[in-house]
Formats: sequence, C-alpha cells, structure tokens
Amino acid sequence: LLKIPRTLSLADIKARKRRTVTATLECSGNSSNPGFMGAIGNIRWTGTPLAPLLRECHPLDRAIEVVFFGADEKVEKIRDKDYLQNFARSLSLRDAMKRDDILLAYEMNGQPLEKDHGAPLRIIVPGWFGITWVKWLTRIELLDRRYMSKYMAREYVTIRGEEHGDKTFWRETSVGPMDVKSVVARVARRKDGSLRVSGAAWTDGTPLQRVELKIDNGNWAPLQLDKKQGSKYSWTFWSYDWKNATPGEHTLVSRAMDAEGRVQPSADDPEIKLKRTYWEANQQWVRKIRI
Amino acid sequence: LLKIPRTLSLADIKARKRRTVTATLECSGNSSNPGFMGAIGNIRWTGTPLAPLLRECHPLDRAIEVVFFGADEKVEKIRDKDYLQNFARSLSLRDAMKRDDILLAYEMNGQPLEKDHGAPLRIIVPGWFGITWVKWLTRIELLDRRYMSKYMAREYVTIRGEEHGDKTFWRETSVGPMDVKSVVARVARRKDGSLRVSGAAWTDGTPLQRVELKIDNGNWAPLQLDKKQGSKYSWTFWSYDWKNATPGEHTLVSRAMDAEGRVQPSADDPEIKLKRTYWEANQQWVRKIRI
Repeated sequence: LLKIPRTLSLADIKARKRRTVTATLECSGNSSNPGFMGAIGNIRWTGTPLAPLLRECHPLDRAIEVVFFGADEKVEKIRDKDYLQNFARSLSLRDAMKRDDILLAYEMNGQPLEKDHGAPLRIIVPGWFGITWVKWLTRIELLDRRYMSKYMAREYVTIRGEEHGDKTFWRETSVGPMDVKSVVARVARRKDGSLRVSGAAWTDGTPLQRVELKIDNGNWAPLQLDKKQGSKYSWTFWSYDWKNATPGEHTLVSRAMDAEGRVQPSADDPEIKLKRTYWEANQQWVRKIRI
Repeated sequence: LLKIPRTLSLADIKARKRRTVTATLECSGNSSNPGFMGAIGNIRWTGTPLAPLLRECHPLDRAIEVVFFGADEKVEKIRDKDYLQNFARSLSLRDAMKRDDILLAYEMNGQPLEKDHGAPLRIIVPGWFGITWVKWLTRIELLDRRYMSKYMAREYVTIRGEEHGDKTFWRETSVGPMDVKSVVARVARRKDGSLRVSGAAWTDGTPLQRVELKIDNGNWAPLQLDKKQGSKYSWTFWSYDWKNATPGEHTLVSRAMDAEGRVQPSADDPEIKLKRTYWEANQQWVRKIRI
C-alpha cells in the first residue's frame, strides 16, 4: 500500500535526519500489584523520525494501519492450529503520521542500543506503553485493514466495565497511550530534621496540570513540580516538605491531573474497580511509612 | 472524547440531511464454499451521513476509533469469566470522517428499515463487508485506543500466510473492506439460439477496470459491463454472448480487476492458498455446465 516501497539498510537509516527524544518507557503491567512497581524508566532515545520516511513512500489513501514486525518469532496456536508469527504491533496510520517524534531508534542515552533493548533498531512511541515499542525491527508494513496479532487482540487487552443504568457493559481495548499517573517514591530525612517526600508523575504527553499529596486523612496538598523535565514524554519529579510529622505510622498517597482534566483515579473509582485485566493500572497507590 | 457529546432521538436523526446510497452488502463468509454463495444483495439505503455529525461533536485530537454499539447483547466468556457485551464493531476515526457516504440508515429501498435489517437504525459502510454494518444501533463512542471486541479481534479475523524466503509468516487481520470479486451467475439460451453468460462483479468502491471470462481452456475474454450501476459501491452486471458452444460439459470462470490493478485471485494463488479462515473468500469460482 505504498506507491514507493523501500528497503533501507541500518546505514541508510543512520544517514537520515537524526533526532533525540527523552521519553519514559513504562510496561503496561507496571503497578498492577505491589510487587511489580519498577517497570518504568526514563531514557534519551536517538534515531530517525518515522513519519517523514512514511511520507516519502507515499501511502495509498486506503492504508489505515502501520504494522511493525520484530525479528523474534514463535509458533502460536490459533484455533488449534500452529502458525509461525513474528512479534508485531500496529499503530493507526494517522497516529504514525501526525507526529514527528515516533523514532526508529538505534541509540539509548547516547550509546549504541544494546541487543536486550532492541538492537539494531527498535521503534520508540513516546507516550504509549512499552508493548508498542517493537524491538529488533525488521519490517514495516501498511495495511488497509486492522492488524490483529496476539499482542494486539488477545494479550495486552484491557477489559473494563461501564455502568449503564442497572447494567454493566464490558469493553475490551488494546493497550495504547499511557494514563495520567503518579507515585510516592520515597521519604527522606533532611539535615534540618524535616522530611522530604518525593516521587514522579507522568502522562501520555498531555501536560501535567498538577500533582497532589494526601497525608493520612488530610486534604490534598499541591506538590512542587521539577521543571527540568526532558520533554513532555518524560516523567516529572515532584517533592513536598513535610513539616511537623509525628512519630508513628502514616499513609501517603499522590494523585496527578493532566491539562485535559483527567485525574488519576483511586482504587475505588469505577474505572479501576471495573477493570478486569491488570494492564493500564494507574490507580493511586497508598504507601505506608513509620516515622 | 468529544468536546460536544450529543444524544439524538430517531426523529432528530431523520430531521438531519438525508442521503441515499446504493450499496452491495456482502457477508464476509460469502463464497467460502459452494453451499454459501448467495449471501449478498444490492440495496438502496437512506439515512443521514455520519461524518458531519461527528464533526459537529468536535472529536478530541487523540480520538482514533469510532465504536458502534448495537442493542443486541450477550454474555460472553473471556478468559473463563462472564461479561455482558453489546455487539459492537469499530472503524478508525479517519475512515469514518473522510467519507460522506457512511450512513445512519433508517430506510431500505425506499421503505422503512425492517427490524430484521436493523431497525430503527443501522450503520451503512459501503465497500466494507457486512459485519461492520452494525444493526439496532444504540450508541456511538470515540476512543483513544483500539477497540477489541469478539467480532473485531477473535471472530471475523482472517488468517493469511505470506512467504518470506523459505518461511511462511502468518498474519491476522480483522475483516474490513471488500475484495475485488466476480462470479458467473447463469447461462441462458436466447431466442436466436445463442447462449448468454451473465454475472456480477464488485469491489470495495475502487472502480472496476475490467472483468474477463475464460471458457474451458480458452483465453481470458473481456466482458461487456452494464453501465447502469447505481454507485461505485454497487455490483456491476456483466454479460457475454457465447457463440458456437458445442454440446457437452464446459467450465466457465470469471475474474475481475480494479483500477488499482488488484486482480481477483485463482484458488491456487498464494493469497487464497495461504488463507486459513473462510472469511474474505474472493477466489475465482469455476462453474460447470452441460449443454
């Protein structure tokens, strides 16, 4: 579905326009349970933008999907038969074309990308969960219909309920853009004896409007956001100076809100309570500390 | 994901701009076997275009999907748990917005739509297989991630192989636009004693370039196309005057080609041979007759 299909060597790709984007990579299962809280990192990625390359290939008007195939292959059972498949994920062509920061990346934090991280080439989709960032990229295809791989259609699918009157209807969606989210990372005693609470917050690229902290049964208090963030796709550190903390056990919980007004939900909000798979868990995490 | 969500009554929808489109509706399983060849019809549909309605609701920039929900509901087992679901299918927002001929339809051939055909309202997606044309429409939603219902992700999925060197990789795609296709419908004796072969051909809306017929082991002969077709989404009848037919058994097979150069494949072509589900069967059909 390209008027001008192309085959590019890694050298061809490295000779193209170079771009560096700082972006947080989060596993879509991160925070699904207390034992799985660290599957996130913030990295400087370098590569060449995908969109101009697609434009040069002149997609036909009926192309709607861009599919990224990795070198990793496996025989999968589908309806009781065996099929050899590459790991693959797709984006809508519109998503792939409207942004210049989806990269074919070959460097990570200024170093050549390592094999474990997808060398020689992986796709970087800032603001989307990690499953979309296909490693060991070998081929990109355009399709005129929806791609339905195991990892689009059967795995990495969120099942969520929605109440309509007295009925709950359930909706399945493929893991996609990241959700507005924050977490209390640590509480440290400073030289003056006061406590500093710090953590991070991140979004799908929509600017953060504010992050708040609640201590015990207090009110939500606004947090100081670190302005030195690398890009709109990287996490933002925040901090709070906790004065007059009393000895004993305390609960701390943060919540983030983005510029569209989307608020990080509590574990009791319907969008979390009615979520039945562990992907896309952005609920507020209540942390306990003892002083 | 709409700045201005709206609730419309059927009367509101009927008061909107009215449009009639003639379009062939084909079941995506049609022609999967000799006993299932008639699941297709050509109909005049009347309703209001979807795209202007969506535009009036101002979708947010991050909306990528339009999901159509029908009134029909069922409890489905997903990963061994029960979930109440409406029948639903989605289109990419781009597909839904770029055309003015996707209709919210309430009339069929000039008559009020009947209940069996989706009354009071169904969606008409000319050029796409029938599964997309959701009946008993109750609600339209926009999403910022891919919708994965049973009928997008697990059923009405085509599994097709593609040979890369000595390996065959398998690809799953959701049933989407119709394929270029033709069929020999009948052979009739005319008053002058000659035979007239007739049939139909159709596409996803791409103009037909030509339709050809092969008799026994002869060459592909061009067919006469009926120009009175209702729209680019309706089938085109074709005919062929067969002179000097000899008594005995003969084979007849037709093939269509569209303006993009896509040719209706034979049953032996890889795109059919390496298709493992019965959906989207557009192979040439060899018919036998005895004179």
